[in-house]
Formats: sequence, C-alpha cells, structure tokens
Amino acid sequence: MSTRRDFLHLTAAATALGALPAAAQAPAAEPGTPIPPQGDAKGSQTLRLVTFAPDKAGTPRLGAVRADGRVIDLSKAGLPGVDATGMVSLIAAGPKALEAARRAAASGDGPQVETVHLLAPIPAPTRNIYAVGWNYLEHFAEGQATSLAKTEYPAHPVFFTKGVNTINGPYDPIPYDTAVSTQIDWEAELAVVVGKGGRNIQEADALDHVFGYSVMNDTTARDMQRTLHGGQWFKGKSLDGHGPFGPWIVPASDIDPSDLRLLLRVNGVVKQDASTKQMYFKVARIISELSRGLTLMPGDIIATGTPPGVGFARKPPEFLKPGDVMETEIVGLGTLRNVIQAVPA
Amino acid sequence: MSTRRDFLHLTAAATALGALPAAAQAPAAEPGTPIPPQGDAKGSQTLRLVTFAPDKAGTPRLGAVRADGRVIDLSKAGLPGVDATGMVSLIAAGPKALEAARRAAASGDGPQVETVHLLAPIPAPTRNIYAVGWNYLEHFAEGQATSLAKTEYPAHPVFFTKGVNTINGPYDPIPYDTAVSTQIDWEAELAVVVGKGGRNIQEADALDHVFGYSVMNDTTARDMQRTLHGGQWFKGKSLDGHGPFGPWIVPASDIDPSDLRLLLRVNGVVKQDASTKQMYFKVARIISELSRGLTLMPGDIIATGTPPGVGFARKPPEFLKPGDVMETEIVGLGTLRNVIQAVPA
Repeated sequence: MSTRRDFLHLTAAATALGALPAAAQAPAAEPGTPIPPQGDAKGSQTLRLVTFAPDKAGTPRLGAVRADGRVIDLSKAGLPGVDATGMVSLIAAGPKALEAARRAAASGDGPQVETVHLLAPIPAPTRNIYAVGWNYLEHFAEGQATSLAKTEYPAHPVFFTKGVNTINGPYDPIPYDTAVSTQIDWEAELAVVVGKGGRNIQEADALDHVFGYSVMNDTTARDMQRTLHGGQWFKGKSLDGHGPFGPWIVPASDIDPSDLRLLLRVNGVVKQDASTKQMYFKVARIISELSRGLTLMPGDIIATGTPPGVGFARKPPEFLKPGDVMETEIVGLGTLRNVIQAVPA
Repeated sequence: MSTRRDFLHLTAAATALGALPAAAQAPAAEPGTPIPPQGDAKGSQTLRLVTFAPDKAGTPRLGAVRADGRVIDLSKAGLPGVDATGMVSLIAAGPKALEAARRAAASGDGPQVETVHLLAPIPAPTRNIYAVGWNYLEHFAEGQATSLAKTEYPAHPVFFTKGVNTINGPYDPIPYDTAVSTQIDWEAELAVVVGKGGRNIQEADALDHVFGYSVMNDTTARDMQRTLHGGQWFKGKSLDGHGPFGPWIVPASDIDPSDLRLLLRVNGVVKQDASTKQMYFKVARIISELSRGLTLMPGDIIATGTPPGVGFARKPPEFLKPGDVMETEIVGLGTLRNVIQAVPA
C-alpha cells in the first residue's frame, strides 16, 4: 500500500505542478480501480492469473497481469486445452497449459490494469468455497473471550462453506442491508486454489494438489453466524458478495505460502496484521483432512482461516458500515479493496 | 414398496411356473434397477421429471416417467428454452416449458423405467445443497439425549450445506470406507427444488419460488459430524455419494408437501416413519429465511430436515454397514434404494 499511497501522492503533486495530464488522475480516484502489482519475491517472473473484462460491460476472459502493470489477454493465446470457461479450464489443463500461459504473458502486450475491470479470478465456482475456522490460535482465543469458540481447541480443522453467491470481485462493492445484518465483520485469509483433484490425499503429497494462491476476505454477518442459526456458521458466512476474492491467482511455483504477511485495513487503519506461519493447520494438513472421503476438484477454493483482529472481538466491538473501505492484503501476493455499499431499501 | 414386493414375489412365482421369459427377471434382481411409480394423489396426471441414460454408459438426458412406467425422452421434444444442460435449464425456462414437457410426456413413448439408468434429477448442481438441521422436534429431542443438540430449540432454521460431491443416483451404491468413517447414518428428507430465484423472499410469496419436490437422504458420517471438526457439520455431511437424490422431481402443482409420509428402511426394517406435517419450520419459512441476503437460483436444492429414528440416537446406536440396503421413501413421491458398498482399500 505504501507504493500505492506514494503513487497517489505523487499524482496529486504532479497534477498540481501541471506535470501529468488530467486523464491520468481519473482511474486512481474511481472506486473499483485495480491496484497494480506490488513488489514480490520473484519480481517480474511472477505469473498473476486474472479474469478480466475490458470494461464493466465486457465479456470476462482469462488474462495475466505483469509486473509492469500490463494485462495480457490469454483467451486469444491458443493455450492447449483451455476453453471459454477460462480459469478453471486452465487449471484443469495442467502444467503444459500453465507454461504456455507464462510464455504468452511474458511476450504479449495489453492495457494497464487500472483501465480494466478485474473480476474474481474464478467468478462462478461450481461448488461452495471450503473454509477453515479457528486456524490461528490467537483468533481462537479472542473468540473464546466472546463465547463463540468452543472451550477446547479442535484436534482437526473446523470446516464450513461459503455459498457461491458470496464470490465478489477484488475491487467491487460489498452489499450492506440493515434489514439482514448490522454486524458485518472482516476476515483476511489466504486462499488455496486446488489444481489436481483427488480424494484421501496424503499430507506428504498434498502440496502437489495446489494450483496456486490468492487472497480472500471471509466477510461475515456476525449476528447471523453466532446466534441466529443454532451454531452452524454457513448462513452468516454466505450473504451475497461477502467473499471478495483475487485480485489474481499466483501459481504455487511462484510463491511460498508458509510465511506471508496478511493485513486488513478499514479506512486505512490496520486491524489485522499477522503471518501465515501462525496458521495452526498448514495448507498440506488442511487439504489432506478435507479430502478424506471427499473428492476435491480442479478450481476448488479453500479459505484457510483468519488471524486475530476481527471486529466482533474488539473492545468495544467494531463492525463495517456503508462507505467504509476494506482492504485485504497479502504482501507480495495482492490487495483487495472493497467499499461497503448500502443496498437500496 | 408393497407394490414392489408384490411384483418381485409375482415375478418369482411366475418364473417358477414358467409363465414369464427369463429376460423379465434380470432387471428386478439387479441392484440399481429403478422402481416404477407407485400410486399417487393425482394418478396418471403426475409429472415425474428425471435425468436418465439408456444404460450406465449413455449420455444423461432429460426425461419423464409416466404412471405406466414408460420413460419419455424430453431432450428430443424441442421444449422452448431448454438446452443440453437438461433439468436446470427446464427449471429456469419457466411455466411454458414445463407445460410443453407435460404434453410431451403424455403423448410420447419410450422404454420401461426398469430398463434405464436413473441419475439424480440434477446430477451436477452448481452450488452445494442447502440443508436444514433439527427441523422435526422429536429428532431434536433424540439429539439432545446424545448431547449433539444445543439445549434450546433455535428460533430460526439451522442451515448447513452438503457438498456437490454428495449427489448420488436414486439407485446407486453409497461408498463406505472404514478409513474415513464407521458411523454412516441415514436421514430421510423432503427435498425442495427452487424454481424462480430471488433474494429476501417474503414467506407469503415463498411457495411461488418452488419448482417441485423430490426425495433426499442426508446420509451422515456421525463421528465426523459430532466430534472431529469442532461442531461444524459440513464435513460429516459431505462424503462422496452421501446424498442420494431423486428418483424424480414432481412439480409443485402436482403434489402438496404439507402432509407427506416419510419412510426409511434398512434391509426392509422401518427406522423412520413420520409426516412432513411434523416439520417445525415449513417450506415457505425455510425459503424466506434462507433467502435473507442470499440469492437463491433456479435448480437450487434444499433438504428440509429429518424426522426421528436416525441410527445414532437409537439404544444401542445403529449404523449402516456394507451390503445394507437403505430405502428412503416419500409415499406418493418416490423411493430411493441404495446399497452400502465397501470402497476397495
């Protein structure tokens, strides 16, 4: 974000000095404008796979965002085994298609990412998002203090799902309806995207089944989750648009998930700041446990749990309200920026 | 079932007398053979929509099973707005397509249902199956006695989901893997299939959003549900094939869901016997609550909860084992018959 703020600051200063044309300011000011890639471990080699449209009304297509901020249209690249369904067919097509995508991304050209509409990288999953509860011990402890947690830490991951209807773009607004809930809370999470499917996957083999990683906010209606529906979390986790996801998927070969910094900001104020190394059940264990008797498929999404700092456990509790800007960042991976937007009554 | 048993009995007797050719016996003896429609309130007027294949290897297609046991191929009927995706496109196409299906079913001809393979009527839903817990007070009471239930009856329906991977055919085997669970339990349920989608649906309007009704068994790995995953039910409810569904969808116009008899038999012994009139939250209330802030879509499936008589609450507890035949019947609607089948180690 510092790079982004510096850019904004620079833009304003440069405009005041007359150094930049007015057109250069517009995208930065618009809600929904994509944030260009920030620095990352592999620098310009990192592949960032997106689903994008040239504008809000355009047909979504598969693409890649380069370190220089250019978006390459991969739907025109003739990738082997990849069809109009886009990202999931690329994932299912295997390593050769991925390498072809990498070559096409390196050699192509396209518009700057700030000028396109980025959708969730998998805009319409074919099954609910798998999610893990209480996967950071400090978050479990803050939950215990509010009576939401059980008293003993579970010996196996706590699995629940978020509805497909929760999938939301990385820069799109999140619906807020006071008739439904007034306790909308944030949960920054590392998302795992399954590559090779399988059942009863051994922990030692589990990382071979990861296609890549992304960012998800497991946005939660806390009142619904905690009290309304008898202790099952699904409904409070599954309001429309309450799962912003993206901005891109970075292939597993390009990023190490074991020590990534997660940040959650509301209106620029940091609320969560942790590392994935604090995860109690690591990615391989999660995949192994989830796949016991349950076949995982290419393109399945697993949200791996949130660190401490959520709103309901704060003293006093804090919840999102219309106009708030929620930013969910995994440093070196990407940033979601979503505005909370009141639904017309 | 009495009709079925009479038929089997008759077949055996007739064969012994040499009155029936040998070919007539084979389908009846094969596991997986469909059960013809039984008597129902509307008699021959009832539309039973299926997804079927001429044989196990054939391409699934949309069809209807008539009271005379004939299966009419509706994929060749030129139904308006209905495409190769079959059942969900028929549901989404609205009342005109449904009436065209009814006319085609009445006038066509086709093979006897015992000779085809019936799949789940929606073989690949695009989101998890919505499910309601504790919707029969007597089942809540038996759960309390085992400490699975919370102490107070919830004021709103308890929602959870079953994975898309649980969908299984009405006569297909259910995988049983001792490495995963040895506490596989039955739950006979009325399934609601959503027609017109919507969000924040009012209870008074909710039945307008029902396309039809079907039968589901919310098969459950009780050990996983109760203790393994911290109190969230999803995983224990979501083993592969643990959601047999069908054998057909009967449109809402053709059946009244308010007082249907549910029966669950294991190897012919009745374990559950109740009426949908005992449901605590009725269908309209379930749809209204579920759709609060969550957009329902055509073809969404809602399992509405199970009556008392499940295995784990029995004294001593009973669970399914390989070779057991589980029959799930809603009288006048249809019967599922699934054999529990050990997965090779």
